Amino acid sequence: MTGPISYDHHRLVSDVIYADTKRSLANAEQAVRALLDAGTLPYILGGDHAITMATVAAYSEQPPMHIVHLDAHLDFIDERNGVSWGHGSPMRRSSEMSHVKGITTLGPRNMAAVSRKDWEAAKIYGSHVASLRTVRIQGAEASLRHISDGERVYVSIDVDAFDPPIAPGTATISHGGFSYYEVKDILRVVAQRFEVVGVDFVEVSPPYDPSGITALLAARTSLDFIGSIFHERARRRKA
Amino acid sequence: MTGPISYDHHRLVSDVIYADTKRSLANAEQAVRALLDAGTLPYILGGDHAITMATVAAYSEQPPMHIVHLDAHLDFIDERNGVSWGHGSPMRRSSEMSHVKGITTLGPRNMAAVSRKDWEAAKIYGSHVASLRTVRIQGAEASLRHISDGERVYVSIDVDAFDPPIAPGTATISHGGFSYYEVKDILRVVAQRFEVVGVDFVEVSPPYDPSGITALLAARTSLDFIGSIFHERARRRKA
Amino acid sequence: MTGPISYDHHRLVSDVIYADTKRSLANAEQAVRALLDAGTLPYILGGDHAITMATVAAYSEQPPMHIVHLDAHLDFIDERNGVSWGHGSPMRRSSEMSHVKGITTLGPRNMAAVSRKDWEAAKIYGSHVASLRTVRIQGAEASLRHISDGERVYVSIDVDAFDPPIAPGTATISHGGFSYYEVKDILRVVAQRFEVVGVDFVEVSPPYDPSGITALLAARTSLDFIGSIFHERARRRKA
Amino acid sequence: MTGPISYDHHRLVSDVIYADTKRSLANAEQAVRALLDAGTLPYILGGDHAITMATVAAYSEQPPMHIVHLDAHLDFIDERNGVSWGHGSPMRRSSEMSHVKGITTLGPRNMAAVSRKDWEAAKIYGSHVASLRTVRIQGAEASLRHISDGERVYVSIDVDAFDPPIAPGTATISHGGFSYYEVKDILRVVAQRFEVVGVDFVEVSPPYDPSGITALLAARTSLDFIGSIFHERARRRKA
Amino acid sequence: MTGPISYDHHRLVSDVIYADTKRSLANAEQAVRALLDAGTLPYILGGDHAITMATVAAYSEQPPMHIVHLDAHLDFIDERNGVSWGHGSPMRRSSEMSHVKGITTLGPRNMAAVSRKDWEAAKIYGSHVASLRTVRIQGAEASLRHISDGERVYVSIDVDAFDPPIAPGTATISHGGFSYYEVKDILRVVAQRFEVVGVDFVEVSPPYDPSGITALLAARTSLDFIGSIFHERARRRKA
Amino acid sequence: MTGPISYDHHRLVSDVIYADTKRSLANAEQAVRALLDAGTLPYILGGDHAITMATVAAYSEQPPMHIVHLDAHLDFIDERNGVSWGHGSPMRRSSEMSHVKGITTLGPRNMAAVSRKDWEAAKIYGSHVASLRTVRIQGAEASLRHISDGERVYVSIDVDAFDPPIAPGTATISHGGFSYYEVKDILRVVAQRFEVVGVDFVEVSPPYDPSGITALLAARTSLDFIGSIFHERARRRKA
Repeated sequence: MTGPISYDHHRLVSDVIYADTKRSLANAEQAVRALLDAGTLPYILGGDHAITMATVAAYSEQPPMHIVHLDAHLDFIDERNGVSWGHGSPMRRSSEMSHVKGITTLGPRNMAAVSRKDWEAAKIYGSHVASLRTVRIQGAEASLRHISDGERVYVSIDVDAFDPPIAPGTATISHGGFSYYEVKDILRVVAQRFEVVGVDFVEVSPPYDPSGITALLAARTSLDFIGSIFHERARRRKA
Repeated sequence: MTGPISYDHHRLVSDVIYADTKRSLANAEQAVRALLDAGTLPYILGGDHAITMATVAAYSEQPPMHIVHLDAHLDFIDERNGVSWGHGSPMRRSSEMSHVKGITTLGPRNMAAVSRKDWEAAKIYGSHVASLRTVRIQGAEASLRHISDGERVYVSIDVDAFDPPIAPGTATISHGGFSYYEVKDILRVVAQRFEVVGVDFVEVSPPYDPSGITALLAARTSLDFIGSIFHERARRRKA
Repeated sequence: MTGPISYDHHRLVSDVIYADTKRSLANAEQAVRALLDAGTLPYILGGDHAITMATVAAYSEQPPMHIVHLDAHLDFIDERNGVSWGHGSPMRRSSEMSHVKGITTLGPRNMAAVSRKDWEAAKIYGSHVASLRTVRIQGAEASLRHISDGERVYVSIDVDAFDPPIAPGTATISHGGFSYYEVKDILRVVAQRFEVVGVDFVEVSPPYDPSGITALLAARTSLDFIGSIFHERARRRKA
Repeated sequence: MTGPISYDHHRLVSDVIYADTKRSLANAEQAVRALLDAGTLPYILGGDHAITMATVAAYSEQPPMHIVHLDAHLDFIDERNGVSWGHGSPMRRSSEMSHVKGITTLGPRNMAAVSRKDWEAAKIYGSHVASLRTVRIQGAEASLRHISDGERVYVSIDVDAFDPPIAPGTATISHGGFSYYEVKDILRVVAQRFEVVGVDFVEVSPPYDPSGITALLAARTSLDFIGSIFHERARRRKA
Repeated sequence: MTGPISYDHHRLVSDVIYADTKRSLANAEQAVRALLDAGTLPYILGGDHAITMATVAAYSEQPPMHIVHLDAHLDFIDERNGVSWGHGSPMRRSSEMSHVKGITTLGPRNMAAVSRKDWEAAKIYGSHVASLRTVRIQGAEASLRHISDGERVYVSIDVDAFDPPIAPGTATISHGGFSYYEVKDILRVVAQRFEVVGVDFVEVSPPYDPSGITALLAARTSLDFIGSIFHERARRRKA
Repeated sequence: MTGPISYDHHRLVSDVIYADTKRSLANAEQAVRALLDAGTLPYILGGDHAITMATVAAYSEQPPMHIVHLDAHLDFIDERNGVSWGHGSPMRRSSEMSHVKGITTLGPRNMAAVSRKDWEAAKIYGSHVASLRTVRIQGAEASLRHISDGERVYVSIDVDAFDPPIAPGTATISHGGFSYYEVKDILRVVAQRFEVVGVDFVEVSPPYDPSGITALLAARTSLDFIGSIFHERARRRKA
């Protein structure tokens, strides 16, 4: 490919430039801007979670939005070894963008690995964090109650939010994750209550997924979610 | 083997005729008839779920019976590409047999893939369908309350009814399935309340089961179920 | 799909009818006839080796041709359990077609499993059989010397002809098979000396190929072979 | 190695003598005695569960203690084929030691395989046994209520106590085991209420764990548990 | 089982006593003695290579014999950690038995790991050792020329003699091993020239063999070898 | 780690900076310079083949040297998508360094994928390229005859040079590669005839190597090679 973007039927493919992460991210941002200009709903399949800082940046000319983030980790690292654009930083970078009104992270666990500095930065920013067991106990509805009905919401799903046996195909598995139905319920509430303006589903890694069960989960969850989004849009138009 | 059936110690083996599905089904039916003539309880290990339409047909000279069917799918397809005897049709074919009094399907999910026509046919027939989450919420007892005590029941278990991480070894996995204990509880209620007249356990596929966990689940579940059936028979005789 | 054949860009897809082998074979034959009518070179990716009896049958209106067959087995079984159209029979069925002038089978081994009757039938028909070690010792050139230059040749490659470590993804592996270069050399001689009129590459089975190495071998070998065929055609046109 | 024990940084390694189980057990006992003499908390990574009868024996000069045992099995076999020191016997052997005040086994299931004799011996000894489903229903707190606050407790964790999909890497998987959080909750209660004097985590078997998920579970659980133990010790010192 | 030996149709099974290697070996010896008393040809499937010192010992009342040993290693270790009956020692122990006339080891490689002492002991004993590449270059015939025609020969095959890609299922793989045909040729020469009085095929380990390719190789090689042995016996009787 | 380099016993570890390839390469170069300053022989375990352009650059203050490069590919790409420092370019970048006297690439195959421009650039530079089959036919000695005795040589081994069944654990497998002994022979000739000044062994990728066979091959080959290098050095000192 010569340009950064190409269309393959109904898919838009943005070039990953091997060994040049920054240019890859720039291409991803440009691709999402093109999708938004075309009036479509971007549904982005990753890829490394770093991509989210680019795809969220692409909404800078759009009205403000919330981020709902499903993940085993906070992803709020400022920099590591001088790198501020890595897969541990997408929520930190997003928090710095003026069109992002707030971030809700559902599902983190085993948080002893989070640095105190990054944790405090998330608190200061005002991230809404509900650990996996909190979400499990209070349910999907309560976990999203703090966001008003009808808000514009961008959803970022890291496949490591799921429990390892149903999603082994990722590099950073963490025991004790979401079940298929828990995520389905969260996403149904999101589709019912908010205006979903973009989605990314990231960190599915085929070399760690020989049986394909993780890819199947991502596909099933995505089909369910896309179905819910358009079903709710139709329902709202009628109402 | 020259004939369709042979005995190997305590097992009866019915020939699968490669590339001749109809004759394979005829052999299976003949084998189950032989088992019934011998006064035994047929416990059939599949094989493709198509086998059920043959093994159920073998009960045509027996008193009427119900079918309790555990599956991720309805299996109520009339025909696909001109084939009416496939693994998506065993319950449809069974519904057409006069000795089958009713069909209860427990565990289906992600039913967007079911055609409206087949779904309506199941409704018109009067299939009792409880989706996986319905069974999970209401429990085993409630899911079988509509069948009277002491009824004759044939049980058909498709291994894809179970959750994929405990039963990866099948060709049509569907996320969000039964746990080991949920099936165990259903089968215990079946053994306690009904007269079990036959069982099939189908769709275990070794090439998809390199670690053997699925075969082990099928064996464990079958041992538990056979134990319950004969335990309850003994209890009833005493009573 | 409603009809038996459909075009997907540059590929022609023939419907496999689950549980109806004979109709599947009829569809495959019809698909190859369509390709021949369109003046293309059919390059068929299987599927079960049974398909070859259908794809070879599709040449009945074409000038006579030889078959060069790479396989761990003879595939010359007349019938098994009353089935004469199975994956052990493609060469037997082909030998009965008047437009097939001769059959050369390269690579069989461990032939103790061949029935005396089928072996004698192959001898009576005049099959040219060179076992794997014979081919290894005498080389590709000598193994094909008995077919005259410029003959029309159909090539049928069963992936079990290869050594199991490079082609684990098939249901009937047989230790001691061809190396990648041995098959490459045979196919280069075929392309140089004959007019290749059709090819099938069969028995690649993804469930037995978790790492994808077998699919990669089939792709690599096919690319090399297609390249050789068209390179030689161009060379001959120039000459 | 020439002696039975060596130090590698912070780890103490006790020689397993291939084909000499008794000497291996003697070495393990000697290693734990050395750790106790050094005033450390032994945290033992197995290995076959037989090791526990040696590591528990090493506490013979210490004040009496309870054993809390997480396992899919009772491990109370007296002898099998004349062997009384096997991996089915660690709790039986421990029950015979005067410094062991009591044994609590949490998590056994599918107990039809337990011999009546061994079961009765456990009852006579006074083992406190709570099956997996009993623990699941009553919770971690209730499952340990019978042991007084502040008691000295040795914990023995057989990885087969966990559910097979999160712990496939062991030789004796048993469907229907503990979740990650259930064990985490049990161990947190243990750390909060008792004085933990030793731990073993056994039966992780890498050849059955190609993806490493079992090793990761053992590591995660151990880190959590060690953290809890020292956190509670610090809290108690302050109080 | 109560006794050390039992018959299961045509197979004789000798009890492995878990955690009691010496008694297991005694049982194996007793089993082979029973087979010899019954006038059969013992064909022993292991198991750990330690078994060979027991099965060879069982021939003490028989006429003297040679051992032909295929292995990636010498297996001539005197003792390791005080254990003299381990899987590194079968040839050393056999060399001490008066009914063993000589030992020929074919296939060792990467011999830097052999201790000088054990290597010298093998030389002093008079072991005939041909490394893998020596056998490859000189061929099967030359590698066995030093044993006279008609000698009684016991064959011990460690599956690690084969190349890892065709025999991954063993605990001590060593790159650069025999091909299927190289072993087949060696065993054909053995069958043709000697009186085979016993065979063991050891170290196949299913947990390391998820695809079953190693088991298939052992089965194929054994079938070929048993066929050759009885074919040659028949031929000799006729001559 | 705060600095780019750290010592862990006898290993020197250079930081890979996630998502910052250029800085990672700079760290690798600095690490090798430190090793050279310390008078050691750098033996570098990769990692992506891009690392070679950094480790070779580290020799800029040393006397000129040759590169002997074992690979399935030429790795002579000038740039791809504007990136000139990728894993397809290490030999191109090396060819531009004045302290590199020449490059010998052994083992490439299936070279239809090489661009004409890069191929011609290699020819113009004067790369000595011997395809896998050329090396196989002419042998190790002949393949290195064009380099004079005693020359300083840096060796770069891409594990994809080996045949896929013995080295599945890499991202770019290519059928038809070197056997273990072929590489061993090449490296023995290198050690005997040249002064080896540095080695890298790259592209081993654990996620593609679940059984560990590739890592074992890399370890075995490296041990052999290091042994040969120091054995020959000792021999030369004596001579």
